[in-house]
Amino acid sequence: MADPRFFTRAGPFTLAELAKVTGAGIAPGAPADLDLVDVMPLDKAGEGDLTFIDNRKYLDAFRATKASAILAAPDLADQAPTEAALLLCDDPYRAYAKAAAAFYPRPAVEPGISPGAYVSPNATIGAGCRIEPGAVVQDGAEIGANCLIGPAAVIDRGVTLGSDCEIGANVTLQHCVLGDRVYVHPGVRVGQDGFGFAPGADGHLKVPQIGRVVIESDVEIGANTTIDRGAGPDTVIGQGSKIDNLVQIGHNVEIGRGCIIVSQVGISGSTKVGDFVMIGGQAGIAGHLEIGAGVRIAAQSGLMRNVPPGATVGGSPAKDMRDWLKESAALSKLARKKGDRA
Amino acid sequence: MADPRFFTRAGPFTLAELAKVTGAGIAPGAPADLDLVDVMPLDKAGEGDLTFIDNRKYLDAFRATKASAILAAPDLADQAPTEAALLLCDDPYRAYAKAAAAFYPRPAVEPGISPGAYVSPNATIGAGCRIEPGAVVQDGAEIGANCLIGPAAVIDRGVTLGSDCEIGANVTLQHCVLGDRVYVHPGVRVGQDGFGFAPGADGHLKVPQIGRVVIESDVEIGANTTIDRGAGPDTVIGQGSKIDNLVQIGHNVEIGRGCIIVSQVGISGSTKVGDFVMIGGQAGIAGHLEIGAGVRIAAQSGLMRNVPPGATVGGSPAKDMRDWLKESAALSKLARKKGDRA
Amino acid sequence: MADPRFFTRAGPFTLAELAKVTGAGIAPGAPADLDLVDVMPLDKAGEGDLTFIDNRKYLDAFRATKASAILAAPDLADQAPTEAALLLCDDPYRAYAKAAAAFYPRPAVEPGISPGAYVSPNATIGAGCRIEPGAVVQDGAEIGANCLIGPAAVIDRGVTLGSDCEIGANVTLQHCVLGDRVYVHPGVRVGQDGFGFAPGADGHLKVPQIGRVVIESDVEIGANTTIDRGAGPDTVIGQGSKIDNLVQIGHNVEIGRGCIIVSQVGISGSTKVGDFVMIGGQAGIAGHLEIGAGVRIAAQSGLMRNVPPGATVGGSPAKDMRDWLKESAALSKLARKKGDRA
Repeated sequence: MADPRFFTRAGPFTLAELAKVTGAGIAPGAPADLDLVDVMPLDKAGEGDLTFIDNRKYLDAFRATKASAILAAPDLADQAPTEAALLLCDDPYRAYAKAAAAFYPRPAVEPGISPGAYVSPNATIGAGCRIEPGAVVQDGAEIGANCLIGPAAVIDRGVTLGSDCEIGANVTLQHCVLGDRVYVHPGVRVGQDGFGFAPGADGHLKVPQIGRVVIESDVEIGANTTIDRGAGPDTVIGQGSKIDNLVQIGHNVEIGRGCIIVSQVGISGSTKVGDFVMIGGQAGIAGHLEIGAGVRIAAQSGLMRNVPPGATVGGSPAKDMRDWLKESAALSKLARKKGDRA
Repeated sequence: MADPRFFTRAGPFTLAELAKVTGAGIAPGAPADLDLVDVMPLDKAGEGDLTFIDNRKYLDAFRATKASAILAAPDLADQAPTEAALLLCDDPYRAYAKAAAAFYPRPAVEPGISPGAYVSPNATIGAGCRIEPGAVVQDGAEIGANCLIGPAAVIDRGVTLGSDCEIGANVTLQHCVLGDRVYVHPGVRVGQDGFGFAPGADGHLKVPQIGRVVIESDVEIGANTTIDRGAGPDTVIGQGSKIDNLVQIGHNVEIGRGCIIVSQVGISGSTKVGDFVMIGGQAGIAGHLEIGAGVRIAAQSGLMRNVPPGATVGGSPAKDMRDWLKESAALSKLARKKGDRA
Repeated sequence: MADPRFFTRAGPFTLAELAKVTGAGIAPGAPADLDLVDVMPLDKAGEGDLTFIDNRKYLDAFRATKASAILAAPDLADQAPTEAALLLCDDPYRAYAKAAAAFYPRPAVEPGISPGAYVSPNATIGAGCRIEPGAVVQDGAEIGANCLIGPAAVIDRGVTLGSDCEIGANVTLQHCVLGDRVYVHPGVRVGQDGFGFAPGADGHLKVPQIGRVVIESDVEIGANTTIDRGAGPDTVIGQGSKIDNLVQIGHNVEIGRGCIIVSQVGISGSTKVGDFVMIGGQAGIAGHLEIGAGVRIAAQSGLMRNVPPGATVGGSPAKDMRDWLKESAALSKLARKKGDRA
């Protein structure tokens, strides 16, 4: 089970209860009243545990698991260990997310302002908030209901948060407006000056950055990620987008709804990213581009041109995924040929 | 206008006053006494606003802007909307920077040491400094006049700052000496141990890092950037260089004057970068190299050799820009040919 | 000498004492009782200084050094300046590390809890610990003997540290267990939620992250690096591994013993890295891979497949190093040929 120093477990739940929570169907013959006490990975699960299979890489572990119950797609049912009760569903990972959240619900925020925190008398703190030691909330900040402000986090002047936000330890929020249920992980920097200079031999002239960062509801931002405020227009992160660790988002960038941006991606200033775009780790996107809705960008790509909606691109400079794969194959073949001749 | 929770606007200014501030010339027929109240982007500007055009990508927005006045290069004058007063100049972005700084001047630092800050009695704090809640200033630190030390920033033992520096929230400064007007954005780490190990099968031996970081005047350092101190010699950032977010600078690196280093660049130990070098985002530079003055390095490049002054390089491994472009074109052609045969 | 504001020097030591400390041999004719007062780089060293040569790039500086004593490999002895006393050894860098640690020993931790720190009454603090101003130690945390907790560092609920750890300024530790002698540099984030979402058009569902981060003894973690906790299994960093700045380590990753991971590397979720693997800067490794023991990965590589033990790989997508070099050469040749025709 999860380390009790860090996590509190609920349950047990019956197979029937978990079928209801996850939307999965109980496989024929599986006991609806079976008690499950925990969730565990395939190879660690034992009696009383619920597990799941989502990646065919782990088929061997699936066949050998000692779990009492398994969330699985129907087409894998005949490969399951005979002792296991199956919960059948089309998206076992999503079903697992729901089951795991039942066993390990997010702990409720215990309200209170630590005597070790600094809260300006001119800040507005909503009902039910918790402010941890070392946190700093400056003049004019407005924090909605039930927010958690972590230790040594800084909520700078005039910053506005909706309700049910969680701001991690050592975060800095400046010049920004957040919606509801925004999770900001430790060390994130939001709202500092964008990288705007008018270059010149007698010194690069700083361009005042007079926009904000607008973060819509249900956004999550990974540790040590940086999001610069706009130069004049705002930088915007659309509703429900999820951003991983160490990502850089430049000034005036607009990210659509439901995007997934993996670790160490960099997006340069004034680029617009459409809804439900997926960007692989360490990809870089030049400034002033338009990336259409539903685009998929391979890890480590380097984008220098606009990308139409729905495209899949890879490589640096990035091109249509099929072209990139063809080029890689052609180069390998060419090098082998040269090798033969040598 | 900029959000008044975050920014305070000055003005209005007449066209003649803005011509003087920016060094631009008033176009024939434009009313010198026209009152301007704000700066805005082309597509958001309206009556009373000053805007600018610097990138031909935005020509359509330029032709359609509702701004009362526009900073533009002379060769675009005939495409401007007839109602707009033009301020003509060779470098409209630089002129805009000056105008924007007139409307939105940097707020003066309001002196005072917050009761929520920790300042060692053995630290020296110059006149006119502001030290925010949660900041920590340790023994022997020396802070010049009119500096701003942000919330939860840490100025460690013996660190020295010149005057008019701004140290952002949650910054760590150790083993370093800063000049005047250095801006350090939130989450920057300066002066920690360089990555120096003598590797070995019975354990990698830590090499003491006994140098410093020297940051000359007018340097700006982006959020969550890391600059390691020297192993014996110092790490040096030259006067007026501007460094973006999430950049890594290794021990003993020497950066010249006036360099521009874009986000997520990594520069390995002991490399020397000449004056006025421009490094695109996510580029990586190996250790112990010499990069000549005025070199331009494309985004995502990987440099493994010295680069002579004035060169432009790209690719990984990096080569002369023209060679890199030729190789990319040759590979595309080869792949298409193979495709035809298939 | 090193700046006395930051470093305290021990010594002097005789050549014989330094031979003993470093395991080097005194070259014939060198005076065993020669007093050395400091360590310095080749080009800065003068009378009384010990220096070293480890990289043939610096042979000219070696021949010209004014150092009184030099750590060098035997095959360079005949190129040394005649006035210098030689200490001969097979690994001069490792020997230098030992000599430098003699002149500049790590300062002992001066015990004490700053009145400016917040320490929960329910935390356990070992003997000899120092807790700096602004640090936060939460309920149930257990800190071993002789640990240093830096300013504004956050040790969250239930976190456990062994003895002799150094936690830098502005660090966040959550959901993790550390061994002995773990050095965590400023701004590191350990134990935040992994990037786990079950994607879907009606919103990406957060997957509870119920594992920990286990960091074994003698690990060092560079500034602003991020290590996510496991989703169910733990994320593990093996004994003696050294991680540079701005590295991203995803949930469930297992790093073996004695690895060296250079700055800005990203390792995606559930990948296993064997013992003594070396990963060059900015390399990226996809999820769910197995990287064998002793593998060497070139800077900026992009790994998308398992790598067998002992291999050396490069390129993106990564392949055997020799194949990558062949492909680079073949492409250059092809582009030159096309150029000739043009």
